[in-house]
Amino acid sequence: MDYPQESFAATKFAPGSFWDSRREVVRAQTLQHQLQMLKRTGRYDAFKLKWHPCYSEPPTSYPVPNHQFWDSDVAKWIEGACYLLMDHFDPEIDAAVKELVQMIREAQQPDGYLNIHYTVVEPEKRFTNLRDMHELYNAGHLIEGALAHYHYYKNDELLSPILKYVDLLVTTFGAQDGQIPGYPGHPEIELALLRLYKVTGKPKHLKLAQFFIEERGNPQGGKEKRHYYDVEAEARGENEHMLPGYFPAARSYWYQQAHEPIVDQQTIEGHSVRAMYLLTAVTDLVHISKPDSEVGMKYLPAVHRLWSNMVEKKSYATGGIGSMKKWEGFGIDYFLPQSTDEGGCYAETCAAIGVMMLAERLLQIELNSDYADMMELCLYNAVLTGMSLDGKAFTYVNQLGSSDQDISQRHEWFQVACCPPNVTRTLGFLGGYLWTRHVMEQSAIVNVHLYTSATLSFEVSGSTVEIEQKTNWPWDGDVEFAVRTGKDGPPVDLQLRLRIPGWATSWEITPRPDQLDVRNGYLYLTAEWLKRNPQFRLSCPMQPRVAQPHPMTLQPVAYVTRGPIVYCVEDVDHPWEHNHFKSIVFDATAPLREESRSQPDSYVAIIAENGAPGELDTSAWNKRIVAEPQTKVTGECHDLCFIPYYLRANRGGRGQMRVGLRVV
Amino acid sequence: MDYPQESFAATKFAPGSFWDSRREVVRAQTLQHQLQMLKRTGRYDAFKLKWHPCYSEPPTSYPVPNHQFWDSDVAKWIEGACYLLMDHFDPEIDAAVKELVQMIREAQQPDGYLNIHYTVVEPEKRFTNLRDMHELYNAGHLIEGALAHYHYYKNDELLSPILKYVDLLVTTFGAQDGQIPGYPGHPEIELALLRLYKVTGKPKHLKLAQFFIEERGNPQGGKEKRHYYDVEAEARGENEHMLPGYFPAARSYWYQQAHEPIVDQQTIEGHSVRAMYLLTAVTDLVHISKPDSEVGMKYLPAVHRLWSNMVEKKSYATGGIGSMKKWEGFGIDYFLPQSTDEGGCYAETCAAIGVMMLAERLLQIELNSDYADMMELCLYNAVLTGMSLDGKAFTYVNQLGSSDQDISQRHEWFQVACCPPNVTRTLGFLGGYLWTRHVMEQSAIVNVHLYTSATLSFEVSGSTVEIEQKTNWPWDGDVEFAVRTGKDGPPVDLQLRLRIPGWATSWEITPRPDQLDVRNGYLYLTAEWLKRNPQFRLSCPMQPRVAQPHPMTLQPVAYVTRGPIVYCVEDVDHPWEHNHFKSIVFDATAPLREESRSQPDSYVAIIAENGAPGELDTSAWNKRIVAEPQTKVTGECHDLCFIPYYLRANRGGRGQMRVGLRVV
Repeated sequence: MDYPQESFAATKFAPGSFWDSRREVVRAQTLQHQLQMLKRTGRYDAFKLKWHPCYSEPPTSYPVPNHQFWDSDVAKWIEGACYLLMDHFDPEIDAAVKELVQMIREAQQPDGYLNIHYTVVEPEKRFTNLRDMHELYNAGHLIEGALAHYHYYKNDELLSPILKYVDLLVTTFGAQDGQIPGYPGHPEIELALLRLYKVTGKPKHLKLAQFFIEERGNPQGGKEKRHYYDVEAEARGENEHMLPGYFPAARSYWYQQAHEPIVDQQTIEGHSVRAMYLLTAVTDLVHISKPDSEVGMKYLPAVHRLWSNMVEKKSYATGGIGSMKKWEGFGIDYFLPQSTDEGGCYAETCAAIGVMMLAERLLQIELNSDYADMMELCLYNAVLTGMSLDGKAFTYVNQLGSSDQDISQRHEWFQVACCPPNVTRTLGFLGGYLWTRHVMEQSAIVNVHLYTSATLSFEVSGSTVEIEQKTNWPWDGDVEFAVRTGKDGPPVDLQLRLRIPGWATSWEITPRPDQLDVRNGYLYLTAEWLKRNPQFRLSCPMQPRVAQPHPMTLQPVAYVTRGPIVYCVEDVDHPWEHNHFKSIVFDATAPLREESRSQPDSYVAIIAENGAPGELDTSAWNKRIVAEPQTKVTGECHDLCFIPYYLRANRGGRGQMRVGLRVV
Repeated sequence: MDYPQESFAATKFAPGSFWDSRREVVRAQTLQHQLQMLKRTGRYDAFKLKWHPCYSEPPTSYPVPNHQFWDSDVAKWIEGACYLLMDHFDPEIDAAVKELVQMIREAQQPDGYLNIHYTVVEPEKRFTNLRDMHELYNAGHLIEGALAHYHYYKNDELLSPILKYVDLLVTTFGAQDGQIPGYPGHPEIELALLRLYKVTGKPKHLKLAQFFIEERGNPQGGKEKRHYYDVEAEARGENEHMLPGYFPAARSYWYQQAHEPIVDQQTIEGHSVRAMYLLTAVTDLVHISKPDSEVGMKYLPAVHRLWSNMVEKKSYATGGIGSMKKWEGFGIDYFLPQSTDEGGCYAETCAAIGVMMLAERLLQIELNSDYADMMELCLYNAVLTGMSLDGKAFTYVNQLGSSDQDISQRHEWFQVACCPPNVTRTLGFLGGYLWTRHVMEQSAIVNVHLYTSATLSFEVSGSTVEIEQKTNWPWDGDVEFAVRTGKDGPPVDLQLRLRIPGWATSWEITPRPDQLDVRNGYLYLTAEWLKRNPQFRLSCPMQPRVAQPHPMTLQPVAYVTRGPIVYCVEDVDHPWEHNHFKSIVFDATAPLREESRSQPDSYVAIIAENGAPGELDTSAWNKRIVAEPQTKVTGECHDLCFIPYYLRANRGGRGQMRVGLRVV
């Protein structure tokens, strides 16, 4: 198992390249901005365990206190900071990390317990509401923060108290007498414990993660042989009609993917971030146990099944997942409206980050470009759109169409602030997503999933291997590779496997191998060929394309895409628009012209000349439910200007935006 | 105000005609069947005020006890029986009505109170939960039952105790000191009180109805200047997180159309039956107060606005309203999926009955065929589909497409049994929907809204007026009229106004008047012309047509209609179908051939020859979110056989059915 949160350190992004620029913004602006937000909102000082006035406020989403996630917001910021400090030391960020670590150390209770809410506000209620509260979720993020801290600082100032806390959890949870046979409502600690296990090698860490995964959704759990959430709710004296704000009905445990054991789940349901974090952990468990072990063979089919259901029936063109606002998650199959006023669209930033995590883990089990295609789609669209170009404003929900209720805009922070630091840490360890490597005694295999200008360096038995890729991706599909092996040590047999993007209608490699060995969307390059061809070029020509969603989504729209980028239209380029592009008809046969732009950032815009012949004429339906079939267009003909979806809400305007435009 | 529940008595349906046959089934089969159901389920004996085991059962929809509506089920059956007894005496039905009336009389409490649940189960909780409980709704149906009873039996055996109960309500509710300043969660008593007022002429009956209407949704109600439902819930000691099963969030008072005063409501929201009953009462109030009075000018614009929102943006092709199952009501504008697996479709039978009620009332204020078109659409489709041909099986929900979760089927009864007796009583007084008349001293105006074979007879100053229409409607659009006036008394100046159906692409009247005076969809015929032409023919040719829903509904489908009838396809005619006709492509340009059938009833089927060129080929989307735009069809070409929607689920099959078929 090669965690990108660790392997990223082997990758250097080329200065000025697409991702280097984004990461530089995050390092120079976002970390600082988010630090200010942590301070301004009270999160920074919260581990001092003093009362904050907001602790008395009623929950926005009953029964979860609004500050319930604060521990994780701090932990994720520490995690992101540690990844980025590795690139570039920043004394102010370093000082803040150190101060936070000190506060966390001091906040730890004598028995190892470590949680703000349950120490300050309800100390008697520890571990009494695993279903709704984020106690174990926070613990998971503390573990991940501690691992990043340990990785960067090479000391256990943070890891040590966290290990003590984990020891308390190991004692507290499990199937033994006196233990709590429960599992967290929001998965996160499972994947964190498995990462921890890789570092510590201690079976107790693996065992606790496995317990949480295996027990989840057990209808006959614990000694009482009942669903743990029922037992727990009864112990809290709760009435089943007191519904959490995210439950549409009593016992909606599918919200937490706990309605039945994971292995029995046929479709992906509920809160999309929880689903992704859970399946990432399950995939990690499969990897650690080996796919052909009993555990592997038990869980891998479930992960495959739920992944397929998600990608084929519950994902948006941008890679966003989840259409239902109430439970921030998945709707029924093919229910994928673009906007609130069409039935709902959620596509939370954190969920797309979760898709990337899961895809990356699956790629380590089975090299298949379907996973990498989804990972790339999310990265350039549903994830990247979550942060403004200046790195100081964020989105939580990423709809494909705006509406009067939900215009397309970013915010500097959120009450539930999971997304902003999640983008930070993801960009922090982004290098880990580009490629995965398998290092053997005198050989190595590197699977290249994503293309950008970057260099991967690692050692094989004392010999340095360097793989450099140079490209103007995502604007240009030519990638120049340079492979250097064995120059300072014994020779290394390096094999490369290059992803051929699913969106590529053609591609070529130069020089061309005699035989092209493509398996599951990856081009396999042998050590022999690479020795003869240490420099080569992969070309995946990019051109504007028109695509449509699955007909069962009942979305009569077309998208403009180019390479991995999904495009949208914004009112700032179309001042005549007034209805969020809902009525605009898109002539999908209009010529699409590329236009390279440099403001506010470098990108390729796409102009559809006379692409909007007018608005849909619905006058035939005036006062009527049905009318004769007809497709009339009214109003003026206009050009349409498409810009990358991730770039939306960066250039002013009224927040009117749409990805899929109506075709007739 | 001419209530159809009274005016219907002036209409005689021609033997063997479409509606006479349906009414004969209701009289001979349905009344008996429903009587047996009342007896079998415990409803019949419930007014004996003994404990029934089901009173202890937990509510299916918290917090409403499952037997909460029983009073109304009995009252509606009595009401329907009284309408139908007028046509044809049935000693068994007569005896049951009399026994029930006796039981109701004996159930009345000394102070006049009359309710099963709050006498037997929770006597101390009378009028403590107007929001959720159906106490006043039941009272309304008791009033309506009593009025029908009074009308038929010409005695006050039922009306008398009901008037006593109403006196208690008049004392209990209002803005005076010591009165409850509340209003019912489920409107019904308002329209019942206004009907009662017409009979009694007592201002207190009008005043109480007006109080309920005017106070509804008042954010500063009562002495406490707060919303009454808040005050009431607080008095019950309720936690705001204990959500009724139909509330998606706390204080979802829009469910009851009580989120704001009626006059302020901009869009039609919430439970669709409640909305229709409420607006019917509001329209009655406008009519009684006169449209140009202060009350009329206050409320009529709101009714118009909400009607338009409903018809233009929240109605199905069948006339059904409401897509949201959770609150049995309206979704957002244009959110009108056909089936559960596409996002939801409700279209409750009672709601369509409510649309007919509201449309009829509006026609009395403003003669406009838009209202009558909707009334006819509902009658022949969303209402008529609610009962099987044999009169013994019913639907509650009337989706436009079946799914594995919700196949197209009928049931002999329901736990919440509002719909079956509602269809019974509606067909009982159906004659009252055909026409409305304004009788003056020596003249009369009759507005003809619906066509069928029937005769209207009434007196004008001692002279009998008869208007006879003869037609094979809804299968044939020729209507022969014969008008007879003044044969047994002084001459009568009769004017007729004939609705020209909105679906009619052409029409003619023979003989043709020199000038055709058509206003708001009605052809005005003068007394002079009618004296010269006492017999004439209106022809509205019917042919199969293809129609489509509003483009903003995002439903890429076409319907087959003919005259007022909306058609569907069923698997019984297409044994090869296996996916609820979801994937079948309909070639809307295929020739449509009519086929007159006589089994299981007379109707016109429509055959689309080679109408289904195959199934939509979605293979391009295999494992992908988007694909190149394309429309491919796969599989075999078939004929499609369309049958009237109301006829569905009468001829066997697997319950696979669809109204709108995909067009590409």
